[in-house]
Amino acid sequence: MMQSIDLNCDMGEAFGNYPMPNDDTLMDYITSANIACGFHAGDPEVMQHTVNVAIKKGVAIGAHPGLPDLQGFGRREMKISANEAYQMTLYQIGALYGFVKAAGGKLHHVKAHGALYNMAAKDESLARAIVNAVHDFDPSLILYALANSQMVTAAQKIGLVTASEVFADRTYQDDGSLTPRVQSNAMITDEQQSIAQVLMMVKNQQVVSVNKKEIPLKADTLCLHGDGAHAVEFAKMIAQKLKDEHIIIKAPAL
Amino acid sequence: MMQSIDLNCDMGEAFGNYPMPNDDTLMDYITSANIACGFHAGDPEVMQHTVNVAIKKGVAIGAHPGLPDLQGFGRREMKISANEAYQMTLYQIGALYGFVKAAGGKLHHVKAHGALYNMAAKDESLARAIVNAVHDFDPSLILYALANSQMVTAAQKIGLVTASEVFADRTYQDDGSLTPRVQSNAMITDEQQSIAQVLMMVKNQQVVSVNKKEIPLKADTLCLHGDGAHAVEFAKMIAQKLKDEHIIIKAPAL
Amino acid sequence: MMQSIDLNCDMGEAFGNYPMPNDDTLMDYITSANIACGFHAGDPEVMQHTVNVAIKKGVAIGAHPGLPDLQGFGRREMKISANEAYQMTLYQIGALYGFVKAAGGKLHHVKAHGALYNMAAKDESLARAIVNAVHDFDPSLILYALANSQMVTAAQKIGLVTASEVFADRTYQDDGSLTPRVQSNAMITDEQQSIAQVLMMVKNQQVVSVNKKEIPLKADTLCLHGDGAHAVEFAKMIAQKLKDEHIIIKAPAL
Amino acid sequence: MMQSIDLNCDMGEAFGNYPMPNDDTLMDYITSANIACGFHAGDPEVMQHTVNVAIKKGVAIGAHPGLPDLQGFGRREMKISANEAYQMTLYQIGALYGFVKAAGGKLHHVKAHGALYNMAAKDESLARAIVNAVHDFDPSLILYALANSQMVTAAQKIGLVTASEVFADRTYQDDGSLTPRVQSNAMITDEQQSIAQVLMMVKNQQVVSVNKKEIPLKADTLCLHGDGAHAVEFAKMIAQKLKDEHIIIKAPAL
Repeated sequence: MMQSIDLNCDMGEAFGNYPMPNDDTLMDYITSANIACGFHAGDPEVMQHTVNVAIKKGVAIGAHPGLPDLQGFGRREMKISANEAYQMTLYQIGALYGFVKAAGGKLHHVKAHGALYNMAAKDESLARAIVNAVHDFDPSLILYALANSQMVTAAQKIGLVTASEVFADRTYQDDGSLTPRVQSNAMITDEQQSIAQVLMMVKNQQVVSVNKKEIPLKADTLCLHGDGAHAVEFAKMIAQKLKDEHIIIKAPAL
Repeated sequence: MMQSIDLNCDMGEAFGNYPMPNDDTLMDYITSANIACGFHAGDPEVMQHTVNVAIKKGVAIGAHPGLPDLQGFGRREMKISANEAYQMTLYQIGALYGFVKAAGGKLHHVKAHGALYNMAAKDESLARAIVNAVHDFDPSLILYALANSQMVTAAQKIGLVTASEVFADRTYQDDGSLTPRVQSNAMITDEQQSIAQVLMMVKNQQVVSVNKKEIPLKADTLCLHGDGAHAVEFAKMIAQKLKDEHIIIKAPAL
Repeated sequence: MMQSIDLNCDMGEAFGNYPMPNDDTLMDYITSANIACGFHAGDPEVMQHTVNVAIKKGVAIGAHPGLPDLQGFGRREMKISANEAYQMTLYQIGALYGFVKAAGGKLHHVKAHGALYNMAAKDESLARAIVNAVHDFDPSLILYALANSQMVTAAQKIGLVTASEVFADRTYQDDGSLTPRVQSNAMITDEQQSIAQVLMMVKNQQVVSVNKKEIPLKADTLCLHGDGAHAVEFAKMIAQKLKDEHIIIKAPAL
Repeated sequence: MMQSIDLNCDMGEAFGNYPMPNDDTLMDYITSANIACGFHAGDPEVMQHTVNVAIKKGVAIGAHPGLPDLQGFGRREMKISANEAYQMTLYQIGALYGFVKAAGGKLHHVKAHGALYNMAAKDESLARAIVNAVHDFDPSLILYALANSQMVTAAQKIGLVTASEVFADRTYQDDGSLTPRVQSNAMITDEQQSIAQVLMMVKNQQVVSVNKKEIPLKADTLCLHGDGAHAVEFAKMIAQKLKDEHIIIKAPAL
């Protein structure tokens, strides 16, 4: 069997007068677009545009719900209840679905954003709330979530298909979790090292931890960053490297 | 054939810490609930609750999209483009649909709120944008709109079923439009006069204008107010009066 | 010397279409109004109205800054940095000051709201940020803060005058902290017990803890609740009880 | 007497995660910064930063209040009452003043933003509300407003000092008003023509209308744009041209 990986990117994180200039170009290199739904970023105009571009370029469309914190870009943890997590996820999935439905597209997956993603990775109660919202809306949606997280576990328990997400520019701990950003060795800044990590993750389904241990890691989808000067360049290059290795780039399917 | 009328009420216009205490009780007397979608009022928690109550009590569920102006309760006109009207309508329909779908209910109709309702009643371009959003989302939805308005015309042009909305406490001009609120004779404050107007509208499909002319007026759905001390009392009474006259109270169907 | 206490209440927590009906009446019984500044509640219209009523009734005006979370009424903890706490406090003090200045009044104090109040009570870094914002705006403002909290300590360190706040309906731990709301014995629901606690706090500057220990507690200002059916009644009664005991009710001064 | 002109620019219109990259550099060429106050753009962090840079570079600080419409960047007209205009202006002036006061700076002027600026230029009632808010906050503030507008008239009536604002890239009608943007000849795209217009406005206090008439035009302050690729370049060039002509670039004073 051929090896494959999905390339996903957070898209549609513009808002009002504030553009995200790389978005349309990045759509040429990714296979999954996680589209912001208006809480941490995005607005109805941006959502419509982004959905339309994704449909046109054949990119799988995902809802990308976040915390209701536009100023903090959904990155500041908020102490929300499980009910609130359920409700805000459902609201945002529905809102994005509106544009997908009207444009004749198909909603394919859901990936939580920022602090919601990170909190739910560790908190079983939030994880269950979010996967229930996804499942209650449509059990054929795929949940994109941090490999080895509570989210993956919670989704599998209710029969939701998951795609385990891995990162090119983050280091991993011995237990398969990401090194917290506050630690100095959290980020991989060397591009060659990033690529090497990606190839190992995809080909061997493992990663070398910060303590030099080989850790098993399910790698279904690779998160690419959409902002920054080199975002497009890096997306282009990683896509080429994967092709060079005869790895198929495609969105996960049920 | 029996005569019938729908009783609709704007519901779910609570927000966060601010309740709308009549909502649950009013659901016993109305047949259509227009549920706020988070722009002019409502939030994910309120929406979920209101959808669930409507399903439980067998009330037809409608999306009630408004302008993005929580402070102004969606009542301040905003100069939006037709595209913006389309996008904000679609977003809000989708968001409400999320809760309806997850709860196993059915989205039945859409009614625009406040300034969006009033602007689109007169502005053909906004009217077209809104009815297109409804139709693009689901052509089997029913549009609730001011009788004799641009909204009704625009909906009919694209084959969207409409329910013409009439008011118990507003007076009408010779051309069938509502007397603007700025005029002193805009409101009917006498309860008996309100009831008489409702009965004439439902039974004869006409209304007596401020100039004492009998004006034809399609009356498919009657708007009841949800706030104020007497809201529940009035709803109860008008429902009884209609039953006394053997008028069936039911939501419109395709 | 006569004993005295300040009666403070959170005011101006209406928003847009949503009223806070007790506010104007409560102003007759309190000596300090903590006025919401538009982040967790309040809007420019409500702020202007509330400032004007406070000036007319001779109530000391305080800014009541909260987290930027209208839906959560500022009660959901957010992981904000000390800089963000400083900035949001300063913004909101300034905004309220606009109305106070224009109306010819005097800004008298600052009291943080909800989760911001509670987080800063325990977190030295947030406490310092907030008291610095108050001090940088005007060192003659008085900080209202939970008795025995990090806020009081931080304020005293930079020479800001504080008023220690106590509660009529909350129980206290042996260390002088409030019993967390999650515990079953956190609230005092018996009115007579509330009054007894208030009188002991004011007259003896101590409180009986949940473990029946007498704990010293500085009681400069008593927090009254503004919402709920009995808010006005309780304010009226506690004011009368204090007068009966010849305790002077007045706002703290420098 | 030497001729002089003020160069003003809207600053601090970043928000949360969305930067305005030219701002800090532009401060080297302008003499007045109109700083967004969080309604149409800006947030507490951006405001603090922008105020601090302005103080450091000796640029006169103005509040730049806008409509409460972040998505529309304050450019969509809203039907607000005069009271609402007064209240939102006062709120925003106060909020910005918080940062100015804390940083030891001086609030120098107020300039309304976008649709608020344009509506008040024509609507006497809105104009009066806004100038009253400025005057009630501090009668020594200078109002920046469109030359020949209702704002200038209203300000002068209550004794508020005004600075008449002119534009380098907009054409003028025979009555001294700006050619509406919907007309094809509204914008001056030729840079040399822009510069020529500026020099004529500053040196002769007149402008050539679209009908080739010489129209008197008070030119106290020139509006430079802060966004776009050429914003810094154009600011630099116009500053040089003015210096070449021995025109003093400085903020207006009382």
